[in-house]
Amino acid sequence: MTELPAVLADELRTLLGPGGLLVDESERLVYGYDNSRRQGLPLAVALPTDAAQVQALVGLCRDHGLPLVARGRGTNTTGATVPGEDALVVSFERMDQVLAIRPGDRVAVVQPGLLNGDLQAALAPHGLFWPPDPTSANFSTIGGNLACNAGGPRAVKYGATRDNVLALKAVTGAGALVEFGAATTKGASGYDLSRLLIGSEGTLALIVEATLKLTPLAPQRLALRAIYADVEAAAAAVARLMAQPVTPSMLEFMDGDCVRLARDVGGAELPADAGALLMIEADGDEAVLDAAVAALRQAAGGEGCLSVEAAPDEAARTRLWAARKALSPALRTLAPGKINEDVVVPVSRLPALVAAVRTAAGLHALPIVCFGHAGNGNLHVNILYDPADADQARRADAALETIFDTVIALGGQVSGEHGIGLVKRELLARSLDQATLGLMRAIKSQFDPAGILNPGKVLPASPEGQP
Amino acid sequence: MTELPAVLADELRTLLGPGGLLVDESERLVYGYDNSRRQGLPLAVALPTDAAQVQALVGLCRDHGLPLVARGRGTNTTGATVPGEDALVVSFERMDQVLAIRPGDRVAVVQPGLLNGDLQAALAPHGLFWPPDPTSANFSTIGGNLACNAGGPRAVKYGATRDNVLALKAVTGAGALVEFGAATTKGASGYDLSRLLIGSEGTLALIVEATLKLTPLAPQRLALRAIYADVEAAAAAVARLMAQPVTPSMLEFMDGDCVRLARDVGGAELPADAGALLMIEADGDEAVLDAAVAALRQAAGGEGCLSVEAAPDEAARTRLWAARKALSPALRTLAPGKINEDVVVPVSRLPALVAAVRTAAGLHALPIVCFGHAGNGNLHVNILYDPADADQARRADAALETIFDTVIALGGQVSGEHGIGLVKRELLARSLDQATLGLMRAIKSQFDPAGILNPGKVLPASPEGQP
Repeated sequence: MTELPAVLADELRTLLGPGGLLVDESERLVYGYDNSRRQGLPLAVALPTDAAQVQALVGLCRDHGLPLVARGRGTNTTGATVPGEDALVVSFERMDQVLAIRPGDRVAVVQPGLLNGDLQAALAPHGLFWPPDPTSANFSTIGGNLACNAGGPRAVKYGATRDNVLALKAVTGAGALVEFGAATTKGASGYDLSRLLIGSEGTLALIVEATLKLTPLAPQRLALRAIYADVEAAAAAVARLMAQPVTPSMLEFMDGDCVRLARDVGGAELPADAGALLMIEADGDEAVLDAAVAALRQAAGGEGCLSVEAAPDEAARTRLWAARKALSPALRTLAPGKINEDVVVPVSRLPALVAAVRTAAGLHALPIVCFGHAGNGNLHVNILYDPADADQARRADAALETIFDTVIALGGQVSGEHGIGLVKRELLARSLDQATLGLMRAIKSQFDPAGILNPGKVLPASPEGQP
Repeated sequence: MTELPAVLADELRTLLGPGGLLVDESERLVYGYDNSRRQGLPLAVALPTDAAQVQALVGLCRDHGLPLVARGRGTNTTGATVPGEDALVVSFERMDQVLAIRPGDRVAVVQPGLLNGDLQAALAPHGLFWPPDPTSANFSTIGGNLACNAGGPRAVKYGATRDNVLALKAVTGAGALVEFGAATTKGASGYDLSRLLIGSEGTLALIVEATLKLTPLAPQRLALRAIYADVEAAAAAVARLMAQPVTPSMLEFMDGDCVRLARDVGGAELPADAGALLMIEADGDEAVLDAAVAALRQAAGGEGCLSVEAAPDEAARTRLWAARKALSPALRTLAPGKINEDVVVPVSRLPALVAAVRTAAGLHALPIVCFGHAGNGNLHVNILYDPADADQARRADAALETIFDTVIALGGQVSGEHGIGLVKRELLARSLDQATLGLMRAIKSQFDPAGILNPGKVLPASPEGQP
C-alpha cells in the first residue's frame, strides 16, 4: 500500500469530521519521527476526539488491513512511534482533557493526549502529583508515558508509570472497547490486564482513558550534593543509601566526565576534580526533613566520599538540577555521535556495571560517560563516537555489545525507562527466554489478531517458521 | 478419573522420591479444603522439592490430562485451592527456603512454600520487611499470597502483593519454565508478565521462585483510636485522612456493632456507645512520628468525631489490634452463619457503600456488620444469619446481591484481597465486560492450553458455545 485507499479515506473523513484526517505530505511528515532520529512517512494521520471514534477507526483499519501507530508527542527515543510507510498514525492530541480529579480517592481520570506537565499543573492546587517525571514531562503525553512505562528521577521513591495507574479504558486490535481495573488501590478480581498494557508501546491496545494513582505533594524538599573520589565509591554509597530506612526522593549519579561537562558546558558550580557525584534529595514536611537529610547524609558519607553539601536554598537546588538536565545535550559537544542506552541492574550490582563500562571504554578506546537514576540501578550509558569514522562506529557497536552482555549477566534489563521500540527488539530476544517471548507473542495475537497495532515494535522478529 | 492411573503414580513416585507422593485417603483429605468451608478429595498430593520436579510434574499431568491444583497452606477463603475429585494437588511445603536476602537491592529471593511470617522473621535483622500482611501471615505462604494478591492493613501505605514483587520464575500449564521480570525496581523491556501471574490463583502457571521487593522497617509506630457518632462521620474522616499528605501505615474501620463485639467478646477497652471507630497508625522514626501523628489527628477530627486518643504505649497498641483481630471469630457468636465479603470501592465512595449496607440490613432484616481496610476502600461486609432457616438464607443472599450491585455501581471490585476462587466466579462475569473476560480466557488458554491448571477457578464458566 503506498497511498490511503480512497474508500477508506472517505470513511475516515466521515468518521473523524473536519480536521480529523491529515493527508498532505507536509502534515504527515511531522508525525513520522520521534527522538530516535528515525523517520517514516505515514499514509495519513487520524485525530480522533473520543473513544467511540477510536473504536470505529480501529474497526476500519482492521477491515482494510491497515497498520495503526498510536502517538502522543513522539518524545520517545526508540522509534516506537515511527510509522511504517503503509501505516496510519493515530495522534491523541484532540483527546487531551483532565476528566476528573478526586482528591479523596487520590485519583485523576485523564485522556491519553494530556501532557504530563499540564496534569501536574492541574493537580498542584489539590496538593497532589502524579509520580512519573521523565525529562520530557512538559511535552510528553500521559498516553506516551503509559505506553513506554516512563520513569524519571522520582521513581526511586514513588515508582514508575506502572506503579501509578489503577484502571484503563482501551480499544484492542480486535476493535473491542475494554475496561481494566478500577479506581481502587487494591483488587483481587481476575487477571491484572491494566499493568499488561503499560509498557506495551501501543502493540496490544490503544489507551483512550486512564485512571491514575496520585500521591500527596511533599511540602518541602532538600538536595544534597555528594562528591566522591571515584565512581566505585559513589556506586557503593548508592547501595548504602538504598539499604537504610529513609528512601531519597531522587538519587542521581554522574561520573567524573559528566561532572566536568556539567561544569564546563552546563555552567554548574562543581569541582573539576570530582571522580563522581551523587545528587540526593529528600522530601517531606518541615518536621520530617531534617531527620531524613541527616540519615541520607550519614549514608552518603564513608570511604571515598570527599564532601556532602546541602543546597543552601531553592535557587542552588535548581542550579544543581539544571546542570543535571543540561548533561544530555552537552554530551553532543564532545562527539558528533552518541549511543545513549538506559540499562538497569540491581542496585548492588551498579559498581560491577560501572566497572564493566570503564573496561569497555578502555578496550574500545572510546569515551563512555554515565549518569542516571542510581537509586533504581538505571544508568544512562553514553558511548561517544564519530559515526563518519567507520572504525569508531564499529568500536562503538562492540562496546555496546559488551555492555549489554554485562547487564544481562548481572540480572538486569536492557531498558529501564525508554522502552524497546524499533531499536532494541533483538536485544529483547537475547535477554528473555524463548518460552517467555513465545507467551508475549501469544498475548499480542490475542489482543491484536490481525497484527495491525504498531507492527514491528517491541517483540523481536519471529524465528523462521514460527508465528 | 476416580483414581490415579498406576503408570502415572509410578512415574510420579520416581520423579518425586521418598515421601514425595501422598496417596492414602487420610493424607489426601487434609489437602482438600481451605478456609471456604468447601472440600474436595484429590487423587493424590505431590510434594516437589525443586523447579525441575515441578516442570516434570506438569509435563506428566499434561500427558495424562490430569488437573493440577497448586497449594500453599490453604488459608484462602474462596475455594481457590479446593481440588476437584480428579485433580492432583501440588503442595509447595518442601520448597520453603529463603534463597537470598540482598539488603542493598532491597530484595529477597524465596521459594513459594515459605511462610510469610518466617520471611518477616528472616528480614527483621536486616531492618527490612515485605509489606503484604494478611491476618493469616503466620501460617500462609508467599506462594499463596502471590496467587491471591494478598493484602492486609499495611497495604494502605505500602501496597498489596502485586505492588511488592519484581520477578518470578514459574512453570506454565504447557510445562515451560519461564522467568518474568528482574530484580530491578524499574524496567521497560517487553510485556509485564510478573504482575499478570499475581492474583491469577494458580490458573496460569505454578510459581517456583519469587524475587520480592522489600521495604525498610520503620523504627517506630504510634496508633490512634478515633471514635465517631456514626459510620457516616467515620467514612467521611477516612476520605479526609487519605486526602492529606501523611499516609497512615494502617487505617482500619469498625462499625458500631463491631465496636460492641470487640468490647464484649474481644475484651477491648472501648466505649459501648461508639457509632464507629477508626484505628489509625503512623510509622517512621522518632523525629518524623510526632508530626505525622499530629497531621493524622487533625484529619481524623471534624464533624461527628467524639474523641481521638493515642495508644499510650506498645501494650495498649497491641490490645487495640488484638480486638481488631478478634473480630472475625467473634462474629461467629452472633449467628451460626456468616457471609464474609471483601468488596472494595474508591475511598470517597465508602460513605455510599456503608449507607447501602445499612439499607440492605434494614430491608432484609438481618444484622450486617462491617469492618476493614478503610484506607484502601476495602470493606469486610459480614452478613449474619442462620443457614438452617431457609427464609434467613434467602434474605442473606438477597442482601448480598444488593451489596454487589452497589459495589459495581460505585466503580468498585467484587474482591479487594480474598480473590475469586470458586465462590465469586459468576460475580466476575457480572462486573467485567465480555471483551475483557474474553481476553482473560484467551490469556489463560495461551499459558495453559490443555486447561489443566486449577480448572474451574477464577474465570466464570463460558457461555454456551464459546470456548
